[in-house]
Amino acid sequence: MIDTSATVLTVARKRSLDEGPVLREAIMDASADLFYERGFGATSIRDIADAVGISSSTMYHHFTNKQDILHACVARFMTEFVAATVPILKDPTRSPTERVREMVRLHLEISDDRRSELLVGNPIRHALNPEQQKEGIALQQAYHDAVRDAIRDGTARGEFAAVDPEITTMAVLDMLNGVREWYRADGTLSRDEVIGMYTEIVFKVLR
Amino acid sequence: MIDTSATVLTVARKRSLDEGPVLREAIMDASADLFYERGFGATSIRDIADAVGISSSTMYHHFTNKQDILHACVARFMTEFVAATVPILKDPTRSPTERVREMVRLHLEISDDRRSELLVGNPIRHALNPEQQKEGIALQQAYHDAVRDAIRDGTARGEFAAVDPEITTMAVLDMLNGVREWYRADGTLSRDEVIGMYTEIVFKVLR
Repeated sequence: MIDTSATVLTVARKRSLDEGPVLREAIMDASADLFYERGFGATSIRDIADAVGISSSTMYHHFTNKQDILHACVARFMTEFVAATVPILKDPTRSPTERVREMVRLHLEISDDRRSELLVGNPIRHALNPEQQKEGIALQQAYHDAVRDAIRDGTARGEFAAVDPEITTMAVLDMLNGVREWYRADGTLSRDEVIGMYTEIVFKVLR
Repeated sequence: MIDTSATVLTVARKRSLDEGPVLREAIMDASADLFYERGFGATSIRDIADAVGISSSTMYHHFTNKQDILHACVARFMTEFVAATVPILKDPTRSPTERVREMVRLHLEISDDRRSELLVGNPIRHALNPEQQKEGIALQQAYHDAVRDAIRDGTARGEFAAVDPEITTMAVLDMLNGVREWYRADGTLSRDEVIGMYTEIVFKVLR
């Protein structure tokens, strides 16, 4: 026979322990969607609280202000993006060709899956404080450097013949970043078709 | 002997005739700089009037509101960009290779010279009304289509062997648009060096 009272107690304790982090994540998710749809300036703390279904005062328990939420969104996304891509780009057991092929796929998939979190352009540049901007730029730089090093490695091994590893990295990342601006899942091209064509274009640039 | 009174009169009339358009352009230039530096939301009509050295009421004589100024900036830039590039892309007396080479140079030069007017990203998407957005998108589309047609033409003539003219156009324009985000005249690379390397990368993509 199940001791229901103990189960209820366990669930209640688990809930109170998890509530903080879980709610924090929920606030970040709702904020990313609202910032993406309406812009950072046009979204109020009240809008975010309403979307999550909590009061503004509960909200202030988790975040000091809107900038603090934006920073948490950017930091979470960038940290996870770097964690997903950089180890592959540095993996010594794979060839530079394989590493770049996997990077193209991950870059396009993550950018599509987490479109609203990318929050590119002015909101980040203008709405974050210098310290927060520096943190975001350092994560972007870690990714950029890992891509460039894979291209350098491929050039050293004779797999690639890129124009200049630094400039080629910029060109490749800018073209991949562009996809989220126009790609829609309900368009004429499937995501895999887009990934296939961009992989081909990237290897034209590299060879 | 010069009839000074007539000269003064001519100058005075010229000034009153020119004042409108000249001041309008000056307001647009100052606004583009402020929107670029501080963001659209953080710039007030008063900031713009101060930068031009006029009163807010003189300002309202030329523009209804901030959105109206942003629209004028975007429309002027896009119209002039299209006027500079599309005729070259469609020029039947030049080969597709020559047309694309000239497009790459113009795209990078104009983007650098008129950086603040580009006003990319959220300000345009969120701050313009649907009619104004449509106008900007139509001009972007005219440029995109001219690039794609030059690539198609080059493919038909056997000069190019691009993956897909539509996707290749996206990739090429995104990589060119990326340059303004990192290129600085006081960096290690001269503008001509950057143009040279991007031209080489674009032709790798096309061939």
